Amino acid sequence: MAVITLLTDFGLSDTYVGQVKGAILAIAQDAPLVDLTHAVPPQDVQAGAFLLWSAVEVFAAGTVHLAVVDPGVGSKRRAIAIRSRRGDLFVGPDNGLLLPAVTRLGGTNLAVELTDERYWRSSPSRTFHGRDIFGPVAAHLASGAPLEAVGQPISDFHRLELPEPRGLAGEVIHVDAFGNLVTNLPADRLPARYRVTLEGHMVSPAPHYQAVKPGELLALVGSAGLLEISARDASAAGLTGATRGTPVHVEPL
Amino acid sequence: MAVITLLTDFGLSDTYVGQVKGAILAIAQDAPLVDLTHAVPPQDVQAGAFLLWSAVEVFAAGTVHLAVVDPGVGSKRRAIAIRSRRGDLFVGPDNGLLLPAVTRLGGTNLAVELTDERYWRSSPSRTFHGRDIFGPVAAHLASGAPLEAVGQPISDFHRLELPEPRGLAGEVIHVDAFGNLVTNLPADRLPARYRVTLEGHMVSPAPHYQAVKPGELLALVGSAGLLEISARDASAAGLTGATRGTPVHVEPL
Amino acid sequence: MAVITLLTDFGLSDTYVGQVKGAILAIAQDAPLVDLTHAVPPQDVQAGAFLLWSAVEVFAAGTVHLAVVDPGVGSKRRAIAIRSRRGDLFVGPDNGLLLPAVTRLGGTNLAVELTDERYWRSSPSRTFHGRDIFGPVAAHLASGAPLEAVGQPISDFHRLELPEPRGLAGEVIHVDAFGNLVTNLPADRLPARYRVTLEGHMVSPAPHYQAVKPGELLALVGSAGLLEISARDASAAGLTGATRGTPVHVEPL
Repeated sequence: MAVITLLTDFGLSDTYVGQVKGAILAIAQDAPLVDLTHAVPPQDVQAGAFLLWSAVEVFAAGTVHLAVVDPGVGSKRRAIAIRSRRGDLFVGPDNGLLLPAVTRLGGTNLAVELTDERYWRSSPSRTFHGRDIFGPVAAHLASGAPLEAVGQPISDFHRLELPEPRGLAGEVIHVDAFGNLVTNLPADRLPARYRVTLEGHMVSPAPHYQAVKPGELLALVGSAGLLEISARDASAAGLTGATRGTPVHVEPL
Repeated sequence: MAVITLLTDFGLSDTYVGQVKGAILAIAQDAPLVDLTHAVPPQDVQAGAFLLWSAVEVFAAGTVHLAVVDPGVGSKRRAIAIRSRRGDLFVGPDNGLLLPAVTRLGGTNLAVELTDERYWRSSPSRTFHGRDIFGPVAAHLASGAPLEAVGQPISDFHRLELPEPRGLAGEVIHVDAFGNLVTNLPADRLPARYRVTLEGHMVSPAPHYQAVKPGELLALVGSAGLLEISARDASAAGLTGATRGTPVHVEPL
Repeated sequence: MAVITLLTDFGLSDTYVGQVKGAILAIAQDAPLVDLTHAVPPQDVQAGAFLLWSAVEVFAAGTVHLAVVDPGVGSKRRAIAIRSRRGDLFVGPDNGLLLPAVTRLGGTNLAVELTDERYWRSSPSRTFHGRDIFGPVAAHLASGAPLEAVGQPISDFHRLELPEPRGLAGEVIHVDAFGNLVTNLPADRLPARYRVTLEGHMVSPAPHYQAVKPGELLALVGSAGLLEISARDASAAGLTGATRGTPVHVEPL
């Protein structure tokens, strides 16, 4: 039985996440369930795609990732599942949400449109495919159903990429709850010696938070392997006013 | 071992939910635990009753549902457990919280007052029956203890019902985190063609969110089988000012 | 396989908690995971220490508690694990966070610095030891690895104590999500008859919330075995303006 992770924009104040889990456990009671986050901003597919991308690598190959940020639910948008080359499985709407994470795990091995209703709840609702389609399919996949069984192969699924930096010019792609500014500049692109400018601030690299004074900004490679701008015991977002999309420039020294 | 769900007004910033789970796992370490929500407004039994009602149907029959919204804790209010006709088990305070959910699963098969202290933690506190009484009893029930063993049968438990619509005049009974307005009007009461009025807005049905323009209101049958007023990529609550209790009228066309 | 609990200041809007769980389950897929809370105020070691202290007693002896509130991550601060005399295991940074909880479970049986990298993820990051060191070590301990194997014994680990009352003069050490004011005055220090003063309010004991009128203050021994100031169906913090550190005096009658 594989681990199943869940990432949605449902929040935790309703019972929607609990209902998805109920649908899963009714099929696969022994599946370990892990919440990645349910605080994706409502209908923000791009933010959800980054958050899913950020989390999947640490899980064992073969994990099933269920992700729902789905403004098109009930319309003609397709429901899909994808197997990565590493062997992980992804289930969710065909709106690009799953793609950056699949790419991180080696790219697409097989993608299918979910067409076989025998793997769904009966009489699925128009507005809650997380509970009625994605959850049950994830449960069946975690229990060993082959991806080939749950739908028809497709190759024209929706693509979505995280914004690419141009040379040493990147941008903030996520502001975390500490106020750390995660950029799209990967560690292997950084010069040996550099400094960072954003929103008029010049920021120098430091090996860890306590290497600078409280309240001071620093640049470092964060846990996702990306350049981050942080502040010791403080919020870099608060200090700089930067938000998602703020330009970030790296200057070699 | 049955699944145990948890619904409380404890929030997630303290360790209260964790303590309930500790008490459960000390008895039934293999019990799968599922959070329904812990964001019931403090002491709001009616809101908790709706949220519990909304979640239970999708779980397998025989699931144990632990619910605590309990302004009377420590007073003479009784602790109870109820078996539904479908075979699900409910544990919580005798203040009506459990009843709508029990009704949804076929009504009451057996209700007992929790009187046998051998199924509790020793020296239970006056203020935390979730940890000291309800949690341990739920763990024993999930492990196979018969409902008949944990207490004495009662029939005078507290009743509570979700507000009933009068004909086509209903009301908002829940505002979810997306701002969707869930009404108490069930799908089978809706005419073939209709429109909805609330707070001076006239709203037409649509099959799904993308059938209207961004920011526009629509009416549809939601995932709970109830009429909902939503807005595409926006909050219907924000657009209309409606809250719980706001009247909703359906007019046949 | 032991239960593993998690307490952090990571919040739930990022995927950090999910990543820690991924690292754990990659090693110990059958470990039951319980969230104590992830809403410790950022970098507030003292608050985290109280919350961990509040939660551990109810868990079965032998539980593994993973706690991360870690402003010194990446610096010279050590990573440690401690076994309590009751047999519970604690994993986290050497900044005092774990100590009050260890003391509550009988004190330290053995403390080690985490030095054996074979129990870590390969290439640990500088900023996310929860995922790369603490999580994997907790997983190995829950799976049966002896504490003696994961590091070198130490005795000079960082101490931290919850603030001690002086006689009947205590203070608020936690404000919970209901607005209850948890003090550091244990039940066994309270006279048979007493009243409490804080912030100019005189508060009398009552056996439970419904023994006073709605909105009225009361004093009682809470679920942690400590004196608490509460208000029926209201927030004692809101009514009194008290916060963490507010002095509380008990006067015998």
